[in-house]
Amino acid sequence: MAPVVFIGAGPGAADLVTVRGARRLAEADVVLFDALTDTALRAFAPAATWVDVGKRGFCDSTGQARINALLVKHARAGRRVVRLKGGDPSVFGRLEEELQALAEAGLEAEVVPGVTAALAAAASTQRPLTRRGRGRSVALTTAMTRTGALHAARGADTEVFYMAGRQLGALARRLREAGWPADTPALVVSRAGWPDQIATDHRVATLADAAVLHAGRPTVVTVGAGAAPLAPAARVPSRAAQIHTADDHTIDSRQGPVETLTP
Amino acid sequence: MAPVVFIGAGPGAADLVTVRGARRLAEADVVLFDALTDTALRAFAPAATWVDVGKRGFCDSTGQARINALLVKHARAGRRVVRLKGGDPSVFGRLEEELQALAEAGLEAEVVPGVTAALAAAASTQRPLTRRGRGRSVALTTAMTRTGALHAARGADTEVFYMAGRQLGALARRLREAGWPADTPALVVSRAGWPDQIATDHRVATLADAAVLHAGRPTVVTVGAGAAPLAPAARVPSRAAQIHTADDHTIDSRQGPVETLTP
Repeated sequence: MAPVVFIGAGPGAADLVTVRGARRLAEADVVLFDALTDTALRAFAPAATWVDVGKRGFCDSTGQARINALLVKHARAGRRVVRLKGGDPSVFGRLEEELQALAEAGLEAEVVPGVTAALAAAASTQRPLTRRGRGRSVALTTAMTRTGALHAARGADTEVFYMAGRQLGALARRLREAGWPADTPALVVSRAGWPDQIATDHRVATLADAAVLHAGRPTVVTVGAGAAPLAPAARVPSRAAQIHTADDHTIDSRQGPVETLTP
Repeated sequence: MAPVVFIGAGPGAADLVTVRGARRLAEADVVLFDALTDTALRAFAPAATWVDVGKRGFCDSTGQARINALLVKHARAGRRVVRLKGGDPSVFGRLEEELQALAEAGLEAEVVPGVTAALAAAASTQRPLTRRGRGRSVALTTAMTRTGALHAARGADTEVFYMAGRQLGALARRLREAGWPADTPALVVSRAGWPDQIATDHRVATLADAAVLHAGRPTVVTVGAGAAPLAPAARVPSRAAQIHTADDHTIDSRQGPVETLTP
């Protein structure tokens, strides 16, 4: 294996890592991991040294420079290093900076892709991101920039916003300004892919209603074609789906169909 | 497990399926699979009956209605059914139609996400889809509609076009019409994630140059911020990366850095 292997851990639950990722983990001497990765992943590399380099959203509790230095240090010492990142390394994973640091040190790297949060949220809520005839494109976007400014666009039939949980009211205003109608479906999913995932249905105009329920949890917001529930006949949710309505009334999947809020 | 489990097989190589996907496969009695999935996946479910329902892009060699009927038939017979889809089921996977058919039959389903081709292409070429300061959004788009019309937009900093391999010249024209500058980086990757993957660097204006080399292979085209190679110092490709320039001169990763075509 390359001296450093970047692995997408997937969105949460350890078994959403790829088979290749699990196999590379088993070969690792050192694993540098983020705060959001499931500790159950340690079972794939029980003998390795696990180092929490705890980045969470945009608040770097460990600076990027320190992570870069650790990667280089361990690889130069001849250790097989895995850099485990939540979701997929190529999507909002700061992969560029870490690859660059390794290249400057003359070290090879391998990147193993993973399931990004938008795909996990779509799977567990059974809301396909593309739809026949009306959902031909999906955009994955960070709502918040590094300077704290909030952006939203209408560049695709379905837009999925990462790291938007703290500013749902502001996101709703930006979405309206970008041309999304007030009654556009909006699905809020926090801890996508984890056993305690919460998913709530909203409209763009009422997105702020989700703020309290999802507070403090990693959140993705899906807006547009891919946020809509399937047609009524299709609403037989799996046992895995936990959908709440925005007024926090939990719908047990065995009790009946998922409800959608009307604005 | 639910009577029917949709599993994202990932982009190609069997070990890019998730651990959860591999485990569900091992429990299956019947597996309905698409033409693009790796036959090595059969090792995860050697005792199951594997049925090729061969859809490939937009040419349905088996009609969607027949696939829906097969899902319902096997599930009603009490068999544990896996519907294995290339990439991720929620992205261009026609998941909606199959979930709908099951719901109409009163059958529960589970969806296991997978690695979609855009993520696999980004990983194996080491071109992160998001970049610091200039790549905040990624759009996944089908270039071709069901009616054969070709669409392209400039809705995100990075756009990844699926199923575009047959019409690269037309895609280049549409991209220019949508406002992408002629010298915008464009990366063409066919059979992303497979051992025989080919990746070539182009500009939007010269995208048609890729047509011959990638002909007849499933292709994704990445345009914009996420298509650019990393800065020169960062060009130490992994052993896995096979990057060609558009004039079909293969660059061995141990010989030197990846070259980028100038328009």
